[in-house]
Amino acid sequence: MRNLEQAAPLVQEIVDRALAEDAVWNDVTTAALIQPGTAGQASFLVKGEGVLAGLGVARMVLHRVDPALQFRESVPDGARVRAGEVVASVQGAKSSIIRAERVALNFLQRLSGIATQTAAYVAAIKGTKARIVDTRKTTPGLRLLEKYAVSVGGGFNHRINLADGVLVKDNHLAALRAQGVGLREAIEKARRQAPHTLKIEVEVTSFGQAAEAIEAGAEALLLDNMPVAEMRRVAQLAGGRLLLEASGGITLVNVREVAETGVDLISVGALTHSVKALDISLELA
Amino acid sequence: MRNLEQAAPLVQEIVDRALAEDAVWNDVTTAALIQPGTAGQASFLVKGEGVLAGLGVARMVLHRVDPALQFRESVPDGARVRAGEVVASVQGAKSSIIRAERVALNFLQRLSGIATQTAAYVAAIKGTKARIVDTRKTTPGLRLLEKYAVSVGGGFNHRINLADGVLVKDNHLAALRAQGVGLREAIEKARRQAPHTLKIEVEVTSFGQAAEAIEAGAEALLLDNMPVAEMRRVAQLAGGRLLLEASGGITLVNVREVAETGVDLISVGALTHSVKALDISLELA
Amino acid sequence: MRNLEQAAPLVQEIVDRALAEDAVWNDVTTAALIQPGTAGQASFLVKGEGVLAGLGVARMVLHRVDPALQFRESVPDGARVRAGEVVASVQGAKSSIIRAERVALNFLQRLSGIATQTAAYVAAIKGTKARIVDTRKTTPGLRLLEKYAVSVGGGFNHRINLADGVLVKDNHLAALRAQGVGLREAIEKARRQAPHTLKIEVEVTSFGQAAEAIEAGAEALLLDNMPVAEMRRVAQLAGGRLLLEASGGITLVNVREVAETGVDLISVGALTHSVKALDISLELA
Amino acid sequence: MRNLEQAAPLVQEIVDRALAEDAVWNDVTTAALIQPGTAGQASFLVKGEGVLAGLGVARMVLHRVDPALQFRESVPDGARVRAGEVVASVQGAKSSIIRAERVALNFLQRLSGIATQTAAYVAAIKGTKARIVDTRKTTPGLRLLEKYAVSVGGGFNHRINLADGVLVKDNHLAALRAQGVGLREAIEKARRQAPHTLKIEVEVTSFGQAAEAIEAGAEALLLDNMPVAEMRRVAQLAGGRLLLEASGGITLVNVREVAETGVDLISVGALTHSVKALDISLELA
Amino acid sequence: MRNLEQAAPLVQEIVDRALAEDAVWNDVTTAALIQPGTAGQASFLVKGEGVLAGLGVARMVLHRVDPALQFRESVPDGARVRAGEVVASVQGAKSSIIRAERVALNFLQRLSGIATQTAAYVAAIKGTKARIVDTRKTTPGLRLLEKYAVSVGGGFNHRINLADGVLVKDNHLAALRAQGVGLREAIEKARRQAPHTLKIEVEVTSFGQAAEAIEAGAEALLLDNMPVAEMRRVAQLAGGRLLLEASGGITLVNVREVAETGVDLISVGALTHSVKALDISLELA
Amino acid sequence: MRNLEQAAPLVQEIVDRALAEDAVWNDVTTAALIQPGTAGQASFLVKGEGVLAGLGVARMVLHRVDPALQFRESVPDGARVRAGEVVASVQGAKSSIIRAERVALNFLQRLSGIATQTAAYVAAIKGTKARIVDTRKTTPGLRLLEKYAVSVGGGFNHRINLADGVLVKDNHLAALRAQGVGLREAIEKARRQAPHTLKIEVEVTSFGQAAEAIEAGAEALLLDNMPVAEMRRVAQLAGGRLLLEASGGITLVNVREVAETGVDLISVGALTHSVKALDISLELA
Repeated sequence: MRNLEQAAPLVQEIVDRALAEDAVWNDVTTAALIQPGTAGQASFLVKGEGVLAGLGVARMVLHRVDPALQFRESVPDGARVRAGEVVASVQGAKSSIIRAERVALNFLQRLSGIATQTAAYVAAIKGTKARIVDTRKTTPGLRLLEKYAVSVGGGFNHRINLADGVLVKDNHLAALRAQGVGLREAIEKARRQAPHTLKIEVEVTSFGQAAEAIEAGAEALLLDNMPVAEMRRVAQLAGGRLLLEASGGITLVNVREVAETGVDLISVGALTHSVKALDISLELA
Repeated sequence: MRNLEQAAPLVQEIVDRALAEDAVWNDVTTAALIQPGTAGQASFLVKGEGVLAGLGVARMVLHRVDPALQFRESVPDGARVRAGEVVASVQGAKSSIIRAERVALNFLQRLSGIATQTAAYVAAIKGTKARIVDTRKTTPGLRLLEKYAVSVGGGFNHRINLADGVLVKDNHLAALRAQGVGLREAIEKARRQAPHTLKIEVEVTSFGQAAEAIEAGAEALLLDNMPVAEMRRVAQLAGGRLLLEASGGITLVNVREVAETGVDLISVGALTHSVKALDISLELA
Repeated sequence: MRNLEQAAPLVQEIVDRALAEDAVWNDVTTAALIQPGTAGQASFLVKGEGVLAGLGVARMVLHRVDPALQFRESVPDGARVRAGEVVASVQGAKSSIIRAERVALNFLQRLSGIATQTAAYVAAIKGTKARIVDTRKTTPGLRLLEKYAVSVGGGFNHRINLADGVLVKDNHLAALRAQGVGLREAIEKARRQAPHTLKIEVEVTSFGQAAEAIEAGAEALLLDNMPVAEMRRVAQLAGGRLLLEASGGITLVNVREVAETGVDLISVGALTHSVKALDISLELA
Repeated sequence: MRNLEQAAPLVQEIVDRALAEDAVWNDVTTAALIQPGTAGQASFLVKGEGVLAGLGVARMVLHRVDPALQFRESVPDGARVRAGEVVASVQGAKSSIIRAERVALNFLQRLSGIATQTAAYVAAIKGTKARIVDTRKTTPGLRLLEKYAVSVGGGFNHRINLADGVLVKDNHLAALRAQGVGLREAIEKARRQAPHTLKIEVEVTSFGQAAEAIEAGAEALLLDNMPVAEMRRVAQLAGGRLLLEASGGITLVNVREVAETGVDLISVGALTHSVKALDISLELA
Repeated sequence: MRNLEQAAPLVQEIVDRALAEDAVWNDVTTAALIQPGTAGQASFLVKGEGVLAGLGVARMVLHRVDPALQFRESVPDGARVRAGEVVASVQGAKSSIIRAERVALNFLQRLSGIATQTAAYVAAIKGTKARIVDTRKTTPGLRLLEKYAVSVGGGFNHRINLADGVLVKDNHLAALRAQGVGLREAIEKARRQAPHTLKIEVEVTSFGQAAEAIEAGAEALLLDNMPVAEMRRVAQLAGGRLLLEASGGITLVNVREVAETGVDLISVGALTHSVKALDISLELA
Repeated sequence: MRNLEQAAPLVQEIVDRALAEDAVWNDVTTAALIQPGTAGQASFLVKGEGVLAGLGVARMVLHRVDPALQFRESVPDGARVRAGEVVASVQGAKSSIIRAERVALNFLQRLSGIATQTAAYVAAIKGTKARIVDTRKTTPGLRLLEKYAVSVGGGFNHRINLADGVLVKDNHLAALRAQGVGLREAIEKARRQAPHTLKIEVEVTSFGQAAEAIEAGAEALLLDNMPVAEMRRVAQLAGGRLLLEASGGITLVNVREVAETGVDLISVGALTHSVKALDISLELA
């Protein structure tokens, strides 16, 4: 999800729900105090350091609350920003700006947090052939935006959902084993039954399983919590004929070592499941 | 939001969106590999340490995917759990369990993360009269559930949205100042215009403003980023006649010191905006 | 709800439902008889006497049916009007005007009826410090608009719904009594459990209860069906320290007498539950 | 709309919106005070005199809030009730009963108000061949239920919306006249263009127009604000070959006189546009 | 449904669902390959022969995907087209055109297929007084558009749904017979109970039944699978006093013979239930 | 989409829209004539020959109209049926059966028509290794069900929508060519940018293009309107290393010849875009 504009109607729905949730249509404080007509200006001020993501979403929030608001970005999504930087400004009715403030910031802070975290992982493996990819461990309801933020941070997207990728995981294999179906047979069954447009990716935990899966024709392997040395052996065996994805227990400390084993993809759940928001505030001039 | 059952239809909508987002209705891997009929059992296994929250949501996820699944909680929401503990189990069609797994865990991990973080703040101020309260810095679309998780962790909820609380914030005051309206006049206007069922809470940044606001009849003060000594002076001045809420820059390190100033409420944005998910997995027996 | 523009998306939903309900998208008579292209003009003609409310809603109806229609208000919402007065006009395709007519009038007539009725109560207590407030006895689905109409008529809004006000009513107290919980304890419990942003209002039916509630720290009292003399005594006891709301059996005949007891608020269910529509028609020139 | 069960899903939607509007999912007072578990009983007590309508809707409200509530009707819709009569009771969690109370009553009171008003008109013309029919002057969003209430009161339903009846009204005729199209030509055009399943009804204001319309083959006439004597002449001319509907300025005072002219239908906007709610309360035992 | 513009919001919903169903908001191929900015032009090229219908729907599809696309029709709906003809063109971002292509064509091809088939039936009965009408045998979810396509092809619409026409069919009569209710009584009951705005149409299968129904006052008859000679007798008996609709087993081979019996309407399920799409493609210049 | 139960909530939505579209909630004929209480039985009677599909959808339709209806299938989806066969029966309120009849049949007839057509293609290539696959040329709004019907008929599903398959088509290649990007470069770009879980399929029209695409690493080729001899050459070159899909101008006459070239997949738009409904009726006993 590199191009959020392509998905504008879906983003709009997410924005609308967030505005409804905050009762932006019935802000009792602002209604009591601020004249609807008075115009002003406000700045989005960054108070931390990181990679910005979500300006387009913030724009949508502002325009939904008041189509007459003028939003101007000073930098694009993906920009590295630091404390004290003004990244965007908005002009128009002060009452509208104040009503939209919190929702706009909630999106911007979370998405920037994800982009920032992703960029750290991407930087850590710079120069290797590996890519950082996300997982389905996203916040319920925000997957689309969170996957976008990962790509803004320089990462790549794994499957969006259960329909657009075949990934035979530990629990599938456990269920199959209980019926006497082995790894090889599972892969063949997947090939026969799953849509022909999708590659067959299989989770393995040892060199032996990896070898078996490769022989059975798997088109990608998820190497789950595998020691680095073992990953290296799998990479040599695979020889570029299929994709290798390292997964499990990846941190900023060990990610480079993993990347250097020769895997193609490194999936990191923490990109989206444990995020520190980037501190950004809106200052009315 | 202490009682999530009261809000069942709203939670159901959030759950349904999460399931749709994950295309749980078209899991191509499971459809290709697992017989719909085969029954089994799986355990929710905690792999970290924290406070559990969201079992009822996980139950809803499972039942929506397959009403015949049997979900059993071993502990209730609010329980302290540690690595290796099985907190719930589910019985029924393996294909259904596998399809629902990720969405159930995404809710459970995030909500438990919030409860865990909240409980740490609550523990830190034990014995003082202060309460830990949340903010509107929640994940868009999940506010209801996140506020529930805060209460599970022992915290209290600030206003849910812009309609159920009057909070005159810095940007309101800035806009009013630009029109020559001072703090006192703002408070009087709010009292006149805002619903009579709501208290008037005002953000102040200094002892002087606090004193002015108290005299003007504010019913609660938000003390924004105020030095501890100054908070103590405000608390003495207030003398329990109105509510005092400390806010801004609160951490586990300084929260007790703040609580001991005599404030009634301490609001912590990080309870919801920067959350580390509690590690929980689902293991098919 | 004084400012309906703030709530535009919510009003739009109500308007869209009303248009769908009338099958405005499939008006078989107009489709059979009137050329879509023919332009014309029509006037909103008042045939009774009252206070106008809902012109913005009528405008929305017309624009939804045909964005090219030109709507011009001659007077604003809140204007006193009398029979024979043209309050607005619309120009554009006659077929569109005819299709939108009934729905536009249904809103305008009902909302103006509410504003008219409210204005009568407001006029009746002119010069006292009391305010006329509405209740939750509104038409299902139209609460937002009906509360707006009350404010157009000079009244004030009580809580919008169960989430934005604490009102401990007779049935709550009955349920608590059955568990041995008295008035004082109920008030303390409400203070402890309910959101701190909301005042605690309690329904009482006698001077004794009122005194007890005041002592227990209630922040507002609903005096239910209390004799005027008793209300006066309660008002003296309260001495302005808390809000007093008179309720039950209020009519245009007795409302002034009630207002003169010194209560702050007088709630009148009939403002919205028993409304005589203001007669308005649309005349095609 | 005599049989509301046939339309259950549509009624459910209306009920759900009403519950959402009242924030029944977040009743802060009840949540703070009443234990979810405590069971009790409550009675629907009538405090006025009239015809009951809407028990099925009240039942739906209660069940949506809490499927475990037991609702028992003492009398059916259509029953004549008087002050002091208990018309239904509900058993189950007190917290659920209290949360659902207002919405259930709002439906019941309004629909009973409509049925009561309709029954008065129906009684006034007893013995004549005429039927009382409703109009499209209903509360936006509630047409289905209001038309049901009219039938409960003994009235009949005119078209539900613009798609299920051809009614050539004054504004249609004005628009056609402006293009040189007369009454006869309009009727022929309607017959040619409108669905063949619908009768052609035409509004006329004089005997002359009525005669012209009859000759042109109209299948029903709406006699708008016509003097009683003139209506009688039209009825004689029509001789039962087509339907005659009297409309405009009908009151309880003049309705019988109108009915005795020989018209088939008498439409009364006030059945739904100006309704006095029947007073009903819910008393927790 | 001759005028689709009148129903624009309903068509928009159908279009939106089709776009969502095709995941037009996440076209992974186009996103990977085509720059969003690059402009181009494409032509809608007909590859068969028929009657065009649905250009307005195609326009809506294109505009929803990208409001900046310029769509130009070369011919209007209803035009006879032949292989090689360009019927419309679109200019704008190539990426948008490609994403919208399939959905636009799916509508255009199906609706043109229906219009083409209808036009063949209409041509076959040219010169008779009969009209070709559609049925409720439409594709679920597309009835509105399919009925529009029938009218584009020169056909007429029977009732849109169960609410806007009374049609007493075989299964109704069977159910009534089982209760001892005969044809005459059924017609009288329908007249008494059904909305007075609707004609009473009854299905009959023999001359005898037809005669009985006419005498009982039916306003239209559906002659089900009746031999041509028998239809002719019924037509003579009816003498233009009521509408006659032939139905069942109508083909292009026998439709003229049926029309010449003197019936008013000939309903053909195959207009919509068995449609050959008109072959149309979109060619990027 | 082999397992429709997995997608039950999505099917329910489609069913609900179809019921609303037919105004099944306001069947004026049935309401006027048939007592809600009277029970009966009806049979689904096949009047043509084919493969049955959609019984589960028909069941859902019936249960939605009346949850008390008892539906019993005599044969499962996929059964070959012939004229005169009763394939299912339903017991319960006659009024409910009659109201649901048309919608249930509309689904059943169309889906069975698709399954029947698919089965004919599948039978024609029996013994070859090729599979019949569908396309995105489905009826807007019904893709899920139509893809299910294809699988019931023995066919396989191509991608469901634009998100779950990479298919570089003629218009993509034209757009790329205009920017100087050739086939090889396009394939490399797709591999780099598109999700790694998806295979890269490319449309080619000649042996030369096919060879180039194979060399560039395409994982599947769509051979568009290629002569049989040329397909055979491509199949020999591919040697099973990648998937080959024949497409364009496939008919029952030439499909076997195409299958014998050695292609893996044969896609047939006519499976869904030009369908003859299977004739099925519902007979009330």
